[in-house]
Amino acid sequence: MAALLHSTGMALHPDRLLPAEPGVRAIARELYGAVRELPVISPHGHVDPRLLLDDQPFGDPATLLVTPDHYVTRLLHASGVGLDSLGVAQGPLPEGESRAVWRRMCAHWDVFRGTPVRYWLEHELVEIFGVTRRPSAASADALYDELTARLAEPAFRPRALYDRFRIAVLATTDDPCDDLAAHAGLAADPSWSGRVIPTFRPDRYLEPAGPDWPDLMARLAQVSGIDTADYSGFVAAIEARRRHFIAHGATSADHSHEDVRTDPLEPAAADRIFRAALAGTATRNEATALRRHMLLEMARMSCEDGLVMTLHPGVRRGHHGPTAARFGPDVGADIPIRIEFTDALRPLLERYGTHPGFHLVLFTLDETVFSRELAPLAGFYPSLYVGAPWWFLDAPEAIRRYRRAITETVGFSRTSGFIDDTRAFCSIPARHDMSRRLDAGWVAELVAQHLLDADEAGEVMADLVSGRPTEVFKL
Amino acid sequence: MAALLHSTGMALHPDRLLPAEPGVRAIARELYGAVRELPVISPHGHVDPRLLLDDQPFGDPATLLVTPDHYVTRLLHASGVGLDSLGVAQGPLPEGESRAVWRRMCAHWDVFRGTPVRYWLEHELVEIFGVTRRPSAASADALYDELTARLAEPAFRPRALYDRFRIAVLATTDDPCDDLAAHAGLAADPSWSGRVIPTFRPDRYLEPAGPDWPDLMARLAQVSGIDTADYSGFVAAIEARRRHFIAHGATSADHSHEDVRTDPLEPAAADRIFRAALAGTATRNEATALRRHMLLEMARMSCEDGLVMTLHPGVRRGHHGPTAARFGPDVGADIPIRIEFTDALRPLLERYGTHPGFHLVLFTLDETVFSRELAPLAGFYPSLYVGAPWWFLDAPEAIRRYRRAITETVGFSRTSGFIDDTRAFCSIPARHDMSRRLDAGWVAELVAQHLLDADEAGEVMADLVSGRPTEVFKL
Amino acid sequence: MAALLHSTGMALHPDRLLPAEPGVRAIARELYGAVRELPVISPHGHVDPRLLLDDQPFGDPATLLVTPDHYVTRLLHASGVGLDSLGVAQGPLPEGESRAVWRRMCAHWDVFRGTPVRYWLEHELVEIFGVTRRPSAASADALYDELTARLAEPAFRPRALYDRFRIAVLATTDDPCDDLAAHAGLAADPSWSGRVIPTFRPDRYLEPAGPDWPDLMARLAQVSGIDTADYSGFVAAIEARRRHFIAHGATSADHSHEDVRTDPLEPAAADRIFRAALAGTATRNEATALRRHMLLEMARMSCEDGLVMTLHPGVRRGHHGPTAARFGPDVGADIPIRIEFTDALRPLLERYGTHPGFHLVLFTLDETVFSRELAPLAGFYPSLYVGAPWWFLDAPEAIRRYRRAITETVGFSRTSGFIDDTRAFCSIPARHDMSRRLDAGWVAELVAQHLLDADEAGEVMADLVSGRPTEVFKL
Repeated sequence: MAALLHSTGMALHPDRLLPAEPGVRAIARELYGAVRELPVISPHGHVDPRLLLDDQPFGDPATLLVTPDHYVTRLLHASGVGLDSLGVAQGPLPEGESRAVWRRMCAHWDVFRGTPVRYWLEHELVEIFGVTRRPSAASADALYDELTARLAEPAFRPRALYDRFRIAVLATTDDPCDDLAAHAGLAADPSWSGRVIPTFRPDRYLEPAGPDWPDLMARLAQVSGIDTADYSGFVAAIEARRRHFIAHGATSADHSHEDVRTDPLEPAAADRIFRAALAGTATRNEATALRRHMLLEMARMSCEDGLVMTLHPGVRRGHHGPTAARFGPDVGADIPIRIEFTDALRPLLERYGTHPGFHLVLFTLDETVFSRELAPLAGFYPSLYVGAPWWFLDAPEAIRRYRRAITETVGFSRTSGFIDDTRAFCSIPARHDMSRRLDAGWVAELVAQHLLDADEAGEVMADLVSGRPTEVFKL
Repeated sequence: MAALLHSTGMALHPDRLLPAEPGVRAIARELYGAVRELPVISPHGHVDPRLLLDDQPFGDPATLLVTPDHYVTRLLHASGVGLDSLGVAQGPLPEGESRAVWRRMCAHWDVFRGTPVRYWLEHELVEIFGVTRRPSAASADALYDELTARLAEPAFRPRALYDRFRIAVLATTDDPCDDLAAHAGLAADPSWSGRVIPTFRPDRYLEPAGPDWPDLMARLAQVSGIDTADYSGFVAAIEARRRHFIAHGATSADHSHEDVRTDPLEPAAADRIFRAALAGTATRNEATALRRHMLLEMARMSCEDGLVMTLHPGVRRGHHGPTAARFGPDVGADIPIRIEFTDALRPLLERYGTHPGFHLVLFTLDETVFSRELAPLAGFYPSLYVGAPWWFLDAPEAIRRYRRAITETVGFSRTSGFIDDTRAFCSIPARHDMSRRLDAGWVAELVAQHLLDADEAGEVMADLVSGRPTEVFKL
Repeated sequence: MAALLHSTGMALHPDRLLPAEPGVRAIARELYGAVRELPVISPHGHVDPRLLLDDQPFGDPATLLVTPDHYVTRLLHASGVGLDSLGVAQGPLPEGESRAVWRRMCAHWDVFRGTPVRYWLEHELVEIFGVTRRPSAASADALYDELTARLAEPAFRPRALYDRFRIAVLATTDDPCDDLAAHAGLAADPSWSGRVIPTFRPDRYLEPAGPDWPDLMARLAQVSGIDTADYSGFVAAIEARRRHFIAHGATSADHSHEDVRTDPLEPAAADRIFRAALAGTATRNEATALRRHMLLEMARMSCEDGLVMTLHPGVRRGHHGPTAARFGPDVGADIPIRIEFTDALRPLLERYGTHPGFHLVLFTLDETVFSRELAPLAGFYPSLYVGAPWWFLDAPEAIRRYRRAITETVGFSRTSGFIDDTRAFCSIPARHDMSRRLDAGWVAELVAQHLLDADEAGEVMADLVSGRPTEVFKL
């Protein structure tokens, strides 16, 4: 280790994140090298498709890298930097304010130490933008200017970066009533050769307890042309929107609720609660019962129309009411809760768990279920895949824990492959590269322990990077 | 690492599973070497005692290594190979079908990568049967023929393998109404010098909600000669059967229920519920209450008759109803659930936790309780031992997590020693060898960190392999 | 590894607890060396302040190192050594009995293998007392004599050890009605230059279900001079006692209850339950409701008077009733239970989570909440810090798991720094040294993976040892 002098430089070590033990590192380096340049498959994320349709230059460094990224804003908020002073929920920022936001992030660069946010930002700054100075209060302005200059260049427009990032498929996340015009526009654009596909995300439409739910039903009726005054119309309208998504290239439907119970209701009971919810007279328990029943229905629809079903449950969204009221959702105040899958999903799995072609991918923020529930479930049901570590768990140690927790019960073939789940477009290569390095490290450990032969290790790596997401998400 | 060429060979590396760091590996190799050849003590498993009594040649490779082993069938099922095409629940297989089952397993050899199933099968094939080719679609038939030839040789009969495996004690798992004739037969056989002991496993008799429970009570009465029309008769009959087991060498009683609550009932309440259950009028809650009370009673009996009490709770058996209905239990569709010990066992431990000679061994599939509950409990109660990782957790990383999670709170002396819990006879040496390698690795890490002296490390290893199971299971 | 000969010596290796891989160990050694001699900051512990006020020689080895330390007595109890034969709850021991207790501990030295108790005791014996022989039945008497001789020397009196241990601040834990005379005495002593501060610990006063609660209320009224016949008087009396503590140097208030729910009561409801509890007519649910409301009130008071609020929940105290009845609390029979923070603390955090200057430190014995709840919470709320691993988790592997579980979500800045939480005065340097070694190992791993630059690693180490506790506990 070099002397502990204060450093101002920033660089990426070629062996970063690989195991420290030299013998294992050598194996990992070889495994990583073989997949390093493979195309990026991103079957679940939150990039706005208009970004690629319009292909306008990114605005400024703060709006690109700080303000909209709740991974970044939450840690700054915890360190005493108010969300208002980070430009959150304030629309486009004037140059002076954008620069101030950027300065605040740079001045707090140390709070990211040890986190993947630091890793991703460093990767983006160095690898994409060629930055060589570490962010700090002292370097903030110069970096701001440097990045601003880069962003004005044609090579840093979204489509150019899409190509440079070697993205093969990019899935967005979309409201069921979205007309998907941006996706249609991209598909119709002869100058565009990428693949951007929508994802059906009906959460709010399945939560009758939500304050705007009757309005959503009205909107759904309008968009689908199907009367949603009763339960059967509601179901038909949802099915119609799924067809609309499939026609625009969607291969999956994503669901995030507090729990994943799937207790069925009789149609008459479902209809009664549906009408009560529309009239604003459903109890909280009734609304929950209808939501759980609808999750079961979504599996039924997936069996019929082929959309892969993905579940991302177990988060208390907007945990701090005053923040949610002032700044809206997705600003860093979402906190995980305990989750249970074994009993909750049993009705769904009894009915559809062995249905040919049905794919169900389970994600969790509660790591306790990896070895206890998800791996045993995916180790039996042919429809079921263990989703990659997500959100707070998309981080080196968490990813290592995930592999250690599940591989012994399900091997590699029943896992989803990596998803980046990001709204930060420029972090996509960093995130996929991190995943490849970590998987290489894990597989190298198996080789070093003589649990896997070298040829098998290479096959596993290629399968994790390309085979799994392509098969699991039906790409 | 060798080039990533496809390999067709298969061999066992002498250092497999030992830590990768060369210094730690050297320590581990020495520690492992000192216990490698020690006899196998297997105080809990599911081998059929008739196997050793009859000493008939094993049938065919599929029936030996695939069909009856739910560790194997569940992963194949998850990969789309139906249980019907694996010969599950179909009785003896004709040669053509057996060969087809074997081919299916070999063709899916890659789905076992990274799992202990792969490790065990590899060990069995290479070490016991001398196989040198990796299973695959291409090698399946030749391997089938090779194994079939081996199985016909006298050296591969059960008793010969029992000796070759260096088994000192083998405990089976038996129904309370079993006459234990196979055990008696072995004991009376002058040509047999091994030790096969029964284990009292009364689960179904303690679950009044089970559909066949009244029939079980009738059977219990018949076998014990004690009228089971009321609660006291039921208890007396159970006690009588325990005495029968003890007379045939049993040293432990095993219990597996959904939870481990031990809330006592007043005798009158227990009798009332017992009669209601016999009449088919007990509610689900009443049946559960009686089961929990009976678990407490089993501890009382263990204090009196000396049988070690082992608990294996927290599994949702037959999670997929259609599979259970068609193929029966133990085919790979059992899924763990969350479990709680601290409060659940309190009534039992308040009464019997400090009873001299009482041994209670707690197993879990919910790893969260290792550091939170099991280690603190076993670090206070002199009756209590933390059971080795079991079932899904009988795997290298899980075993490492177990040692890391509990050793700091209970050391080594309050642990059970390894149990293989297997019905796959030929996997016994592989499983015990795996455990010894992993313990050697863990103890070597303590030595490498200067937390344990070399002489102590050697004592710990011998104690884990021989001392713990012998003392804990009263062998 | 040296040959496995039985050893009788005992020494401390300079690299103990550092990572085994030579490259990482070299980095860790350098990082550890830079903080090794920094003063000890102990913001939470259980040392009796009279120890330092009186500065009397410690009695005998058993009373110093065995009898009062539940970490030691619980493991001996689990190994069949009754608490009575360890002198627990028997007051001062005559010399013969003290020697017998010491002999019992030495004879069971092997049961501590792999535990931090072994590590701490070894450190204390070697580093403080110069012992070179390993405790055993054979060495017990000689060690007893050797230690007794040391303890009679002036250099082994409490104040001399306080200086030798380089303690900068030592917080005690005190009853709200304590007059804090010992603290005042130390502060007024011109020959004393250390810093010993009280901690406000009102648990029993906030549990209206406790059998002695009405007596506590009477005592509170007497000591505070405020009538506690109604709820507002109770609150005012608590506030007055907090002021008394602050006047004597306290910077924090500590709370340990079964859960951390903070559901508010209307003042009228709080008053009604308070009066019912005083009259002995409150139900268990009402008492719990008042306790939960009072925990919210304690946060309100902390916002107003600045005392740091620390929570140590989730333990079933006195799990074994007969032991509790005979030997009292804190003898090793406390067992953790599952805990939940996300929903439980939401009312508190909605009100006070962003209050300027409010510090809330969350400790847990349920490791599952580290990555799922505590890190995400502390990664958003500027008031909140993740407490260091505590009690059963104050151990090498648990500390490593803690850093791995939380760093990726909260970095280093939102953590509490180490607390020793000990009543064993002589274990303080061992515990802090252990923490420094482990943090050095963890930070070295980040450097070895190129996730942190060398200068940053040095800053992190200094911050963890000095910066964090000083800032978080407002020292």
